[in-house]
Amino acid sequence: MTYPKASNLAYVPFVSVDNMMQLVNHIGLENCLRELAEFIEADFKRWPEFDKTPRVASHSHDGVIELMPTADAENYGFKYVNGHPKNMKEGFQTVTAFGVLSSVSNGYPILLSEMTILTALRTAATSALVAKYLAPKNSKTLAMIGNGAQCEFQAMAMKAICGITHVRLYDIDPDATTKAAQNLMASGLNVTSCASSEQAIEGAEIITTCTADKQCATILTDNMVGSGVHINAIGGDCPGKTELHRDILLRSSIFVEYPPQTRIEGEIQQLDPEFPVTELWKVMLGQASGRTSADQITLFDSVGFAIEDFSALRYVHTKIAGTAFFEKLDMLADPDDPRDLFGMVNRRS
Amino acid sequence: MTYPKASNLAYVPFVSVDNMMQLVNHIGLENCLRELAEFIEADFKRWPEFDKTPRVASHSHDGVIELMPTADAENYGFKYVNGHPKNMKEGFQTVTAFGVLSSVSNGYPILLSEMTILTALRTAATSALVAKYLAPKNSKTLAMIGNGAQCEFQAMAMKAICGITHVRLYDIDPDATTKAAQNLMASGLNVTSCASSEQAIEGAEIITTCTADKQCATILTDNMVGSGVHINAIGGDCPGKTELHRDILLRSSIFVEYPPQTRIEGEIQQLDPEFPVTELWKVMLGQASGRTSADQITLFDSVGFAIEDFSALRYVHTKIAGTAFFEKLDMLADPDDPRDLFGMVNRRS
Repeated sequence: MTYPKASNLAYVPFVSVDNMMQLVNHIGLENCLRELAEFIEADFKRWPEFDKTPRVASHSHDGVIELMPTADAENYGFKYVNGHPKNMKEGFQTVTAFGVLSSVSNGYPILLSEMTILTALRTAATSALVAKYLAPKNSKTLAMIGNGAQCEFQAMAMKAICGITHVRLYDIDPDATTKAAQNLMASGLNVTSCASSEQAIEGAEIITTCTADKQCATILTDNMVGSGVHINAIGGDCPGKTELHRDILLRSSIFVEYPPQTRIEGEIQQLDPEFPVTELWKVMLGQASGRTSADQITLFDSVGFAIEDFSALRYVHTKIAGTAFFEKLDMLADPDDPRDLFGMVNRRS
Repeated sequence: MTYPKASNLAYVPFVSVDNMMQLVNHIGLENCLRELAEFIEADFKRWPEFDKTPRVASHSHDGVIELMPTADAENYGFKYVNGHPKNMKEGFQTVTAFGVLSSVSNGYPILLSEMTILTALRTAATSALVAKYLAPKNSKTLAMIGNGAQCEFQAMAMKAICGITHVRLYDIDPDATTKAAQNLMASGLNVTSCASSEQAIEGAEIITTCTADKQCATILTDNMVGSGVHINAIGGDCPGKTELHRDILLRSSIFVEYPPQTRIEGEIQQLDPEFPVTELWKVMLGQASGRTSADQITLFDSVGFAIEDFSALRYVHTKIAGTAFFEKLDMLADPDDPRDLFGMVNRRS
């Protein structure tokens, strides 16, 4: 017998890695980062509307697999993401991810998307959005310590959203720095490859640390960090993994996404659980102070929160409408009579 | 420029709804249910090896969206599943689902599968597996109260795994009963359509309730249930949703999958949190008693647990090897140099 085509109810739009790359290039990377930051900012500004929970992590010897769900009244979203520092040496990505956006009213997924690239984009867009609020006015120079997969996205977002013109690169592996410098050659940024962290942060108003060891590292020591800078610490994002010396934290005003998660995963693991931190959504809404003086060290203790992924999925869902940058995936059973699942299976022989 | 094909690392095997139907029919439904029950039984028998957590639920006015993760040392799995009782009237499935199986060692997904059909199969296989342990010896008659999407799968699993020969159907909607009776016509089961729950349970050794209202309903009252039967209560599976009168519970020996989840979602919501229940894995391992007398009412307070989905994903992953019942999905970014995600995106213009 001829099998009747599944109805449209049964199809979930799927954005593959290849379609994501094409979509980003179609929009233009800097434009994409700016628009994404707008979606994230809009969602931060309605923070209390979301169902929030710390991510659900499954830790193993070599890494972690996490689910990051959140929902507002209309949509539900979650991301699956792994973090396996050893992967890189074996030819795999340290971090891969995919995500789903659904309709709250009937529970049906409305988007399945790769999120390895999208996570890199949303992490960079979030960093730059936060720097827009916290970094010294007219910051021009970014120090990027850690030149892995996230590095160039960070640099481009700081350019697109904060107007950075110079980036200073450092990685313990000079090959990583060479790769990043080459990728940024045509970006319009002035790129300096540095031989040490100390050299990289010279003259930088914004210091981003993005390293991947699953352990307490000290990427920045206290004496390295002068007054007035903005630090964007994005590498420390699981229990037992930090990047900054504790003394830097004690000199800084600390800003976080979602305290219950950051207390477990962020740099502030090193501090007393009562140590005061400021929630970024309150700064964006004007309900809390951001940078209040030129001497102040502001620190974004970034671990990545589900709402940023939700914003990113919402953004992709909006952008693919009417384009060819997705496939239709036969992922949901859709019998003519919803109760006749058995008959549908039975007739398909 | 020619875009180089993504490597095999980037592809995730995907079992669509259509491929799942073909796979099940290729294996044969009863065979499939038997094999699936074996996978589930094997995983129940190594229960302590799993990371277990109650599912992560996001409740809204109309339903619930849940993530159900679990892992052993080798694999991580999770299911996304919704439950929206109102969906059926609007032409959608009450329950749809999909799931992912991953490698713990590098975090990469190794299977994405539809799970609407697979959930129906694993739920039925679990019910029959449990009945094999708890129902009266040589049970021949099943009463199925609630003739929705799950009904025929339950009947076929009880036939394939427990040797049931008769099924007695009842639903408040006679159209549902008609549908189920027609679907089971060629099954080899003797099918009786009944006009009430009371009539349906006449002479049945196994009573399965599977209704979908998101509220406390009383599908079975105390005076209806005679001694010696096995009750399989699968419809009550979220907070505030139950099917059985409390007095039945008090007369029964109650068996559950995972107490921390069943206390919140199952029939035993109605009881004191300390009320004794028996974990099924202990019965299967011979560490706890199952049915001990012919008069005893045994009750499987089934809510569905992540390990059953894990077993089902493991089963599908095993069965598709070397077949054409899957597609390769470009879901994971895989740059030649794992750190060069930016370069990969950049070059794809």
